Amino acid sequence: MNDESSPSDGVFSVRSRRASRQAIGFLMQQGIENRSCLSLAAGFVDESSLPLAECLEAATSVLSNTSRGRGALQYGTTQGDEGFRNSLLAHLARLEGRTVEQLGIGADRLVVTTGSQQLLALVADALFDPGDICLVAMPTYFVFLGVLDGVGARTIGVEADENGMRMDALAATLADLEQRGELDRVKLIYLVTDFENPSGACLADDRRSEVLRLAQQYSRRNPIYILEDAAYRELRYDGPSIPSIWSRPGGDERVILAMTFSKSFSPGVRTGFGVLPRPLMTPVCNLKGNLDFGSSQWNQALLTHVLKSGAYVAHLEQVKASYRTKRDALLRAADEFLADIPGVSWLRPEGGLYVWLSLPEHIETGFASPLFHTATRQHGVMYVPGELCYPTVNGQSRAHQMRLSFGVLPPDNLREGIRRLSGAIRDVLKSAEA
Amino acid sequence: MNDESSPSDGVFSVRSRRASRQAIGFLMQQGIENRSCLSLAAGFVDESSLPLAECLEAATSVLSNTSRGRGALQYGTTQGDEGFRNSLLAHLARLEGRTVEQLGIGADRLVVTTGSQQLLALVADALFDPGDICLVAMPTYFVFLGVLDGVGARTIGVEADENGMRMDALAATLADLEQRGELDRVKLIYLVTDFENPSGACLADDRRSEVLRLAQQYSRRNPIYILEDAAYRELRYDGPSIPSIWSRPGGDERVILAMTFSKSFSPGVRTGFGVLPRPLMTPVCNLKGNLDFGSSQWNQALLTHVLKSGAYVAHLEQVKASYRTKRDALLRAADEFLADIPGVSWLRPEGGLYVWLSLPEHIETGFASPLFHTATRQHGVMYVPGELCYPTVNGQSRAHQMRLSFGVLPPDNLREGIRRLSGAIRDVLKSAEA
Repeated sequence: MNDESSPSDGVFSVRSRRASRQAIGFLMQQGIENRSCLSLAAGFVDESSLPLAECLEAATSVLSNTSRGRGALQYGTTQGDEGFRNSLLAHLARLEGRTVEQLGIGADRLVVTTGSQQLLALVADALFDPGDICLVAMPTYFVFLGVLDGVGARTIGVEADENGMRMDALAATLADLEQRGELDRVKLIYLVTDFENPSGACLADDRRSEVLRLAQQYSRRNPIYILEDAAYRELRYDGPSIPSIWSRPGGDERVILAMTFSKSFSPGVRTGFGVLPRPLMTPVCNLKGNLDFGSSQWNQALLTHVLKSGAYVAHLEQVKASYRTKRDALLRAADEFLADIPGVSWLRPEGGLYVWLSLPEHIETGFASPLFHTATRQHGVMYVPGELCYPTVNGQSRAHQMRLSFGVLPPDNLREGIRRLSGAIRDVLKSAEA
Repeated sequence: MNDESSPSDGVFSVRSRRASRQAIGFLMQQGIENRSCLSLAAGFVDESSLPLAECLEAATSVLSNTSRGRGALQYGTTQGDEGFRNSLLAHLARLEGRTVEQLGIGADRLVVTTGSQQLLALVADALFDPGDICLVAMPTYFVFLGVLDGVGARTIGVEADENGMRMDALAATLADLEQRGELDRVKLIYLVTDFENPSGACLADDRRSEVLRLAQQYSRRNPIYILEDAAYRELRYDGPSIPSIWSRPGGDERVILAMTFSKSFSPGVRTGFGVLPRPLMTPVCNLKGNLDFGSSQWNQALLTHVLKSGAYVAHLEQVKASYRTKRDALLRAADEFLADIPGVSWLRPEGGLYVWLSLPEHIETGFASPLFHTATRQHGVMYVPGELCYPTVNGQSRAHQMRLSFGVLPPDNLREGIRRLSGAIRDVLKSAEA
């Protein structure tokens, strides 16, 4: 479809035509068409550790109190319930290892959203006119790439390694854009700082300081914001946690910190939040006002309860233990079934839900590739093709990688899934040699 | 602010600058600044009839069943839970006085949204490029006027009376647009068919057929869709219900039917839905995919339960009884305190939450008017100025009307609110004569 057609030529808007380039649709369709497969693709969370008891306790507590119950079932404000936002400040302080006072902001800097996804979409809508530029790591979260397409942004990929986006590459990209006179079009640097979806990489401590410095240095006529997507932050299984970019000196003026309860508690309650630089508060709230004038008060009330009661933190420990076991199962299976295949390698994430696997460069993984076909049709296993996680412009995409999720399947099935994948890769390598 | 400025001139996007024209922000600010007032302005629902017991029963039932509970707390699909959408079909059939089979559609034509507001925003985003045209009744739902501004649509008002939008005026407007060569830019006719916010008017039965006929007649090179906002449909206190525009022959190809549980059950669960013409399904779901990839599964599970158990219908009867009492209290107070003021008149709604009051034409009601000041500062009563409910183009706004809500206050306070309003109007009339 052609974005450049005259608006009045189409029945639907230019924006709706742009939105049709979202990869998640293809992916869900593949999931539906390959239901008999073991899915290492699905980004869902572990079923068995969903907080049924915690939610029932919270619902009972909220609804047994007439005043709280009525507040939960009434309209709220676009920005989100004030009591909830105060609980979120305490939650954030805990994660940053500080007191609420040390955070240096009030609840007026928080916006509650329908999952952190809505925050990402609102920020994109607030910042980007068509042709404006977003810098992202390669690879990065493919759903946000679709959001950027949806607002007509130009997305430029920056090299990354096992420690996240490379700062030398970022500096070079910014310098190049400045030289080409395009610096004013750079609105945002997008980073999934903790256990990136899809790579599992965690942005190194020194890089967090450096990206902030670079964003400040290159903010000339217009500010360059950093969108720090910390969706997986709480799912750390090994190693010390790293303070957010947002928490560093000057960070709160430059960084949009996006967080969610979807991974750490329940995606079904669809609640995330953002901490925003002051100038962004009004534009983001105005856009959200048009969209839904506020996320569910009821879900906010339940989360307020579990945050205050301690049930949230206790449950998180269970969730982490469960995912740690699964990650270890997947990595053990990879050692067992994949280590002897020449040119196959993978990252060992300290948290999150994903393992990023690279094959020999000539082995493509896309939906149309022999490997995807062989894996889904003959070996009964599905994965997310890595090329979805690259910007589509400038031929930056790489076709020989894949994302493996350990969120959904139990450990035994993860092992079996990797065994099957190993079989599919070996088949395709054999054909390629033949 | 100037929309026409070059995109790269601004820190924020053109869209975010457009979104800043939303009137609800002013209104909420006024509410905050005038907390001591009796508010006949707030669009909230009746606190005392919120379904606390029903929600607790539903939460307990859903979470006591491991499989249902896990489904509720997991991710869902962008379109909404299939079981919930099937329950919605049965719900819709009940409202239309038909069987599900007679509806002639499947659950694949429904989209679940975060309140019906999100559906309105998605439809606007799917249809409108800047400069495209939407036809609306005068007055109409002011939040949607803000949404239309937000996507850069041109909004053209069409005369309305106590039976809703006048079809002779609509026909004349369409003929005029055709003559001016602008028919291809007309994408949508927006109608709040039942107990319009703000006028309380219900679109008459014959007008519902006629608007469909006109939309079909004038759909030449491009289709003209009808957005039937039936948010208040279930809040009918007198008289027979009128079948939707959507239900009429050919309606399901032309009409987007928007409904919500916010008014009839609870705004806190933030759940609405749309029934869409087939061509709109993909654009709307793609846009929603970028935005949040699905509304809360948990809230959908609760509503599925109360719809199936019968708790919803039983609760609705209580809600209606409560609002009927309030409406009658407000109308009685108007008869008592306002009937003798020359040039003051109001509509008597058969349902909904609003009474539309007109003053003598020289008495302005806006935020900057002497009446608003006198009412809020001296008499302690607040209302919504009617001019917010008119499109801002072409000087179509009228300044001598107001919206009175009977949703929030108890009957005694409604009477007192009208008594105070009467005092304020008399004061301003006296000053105007002096």
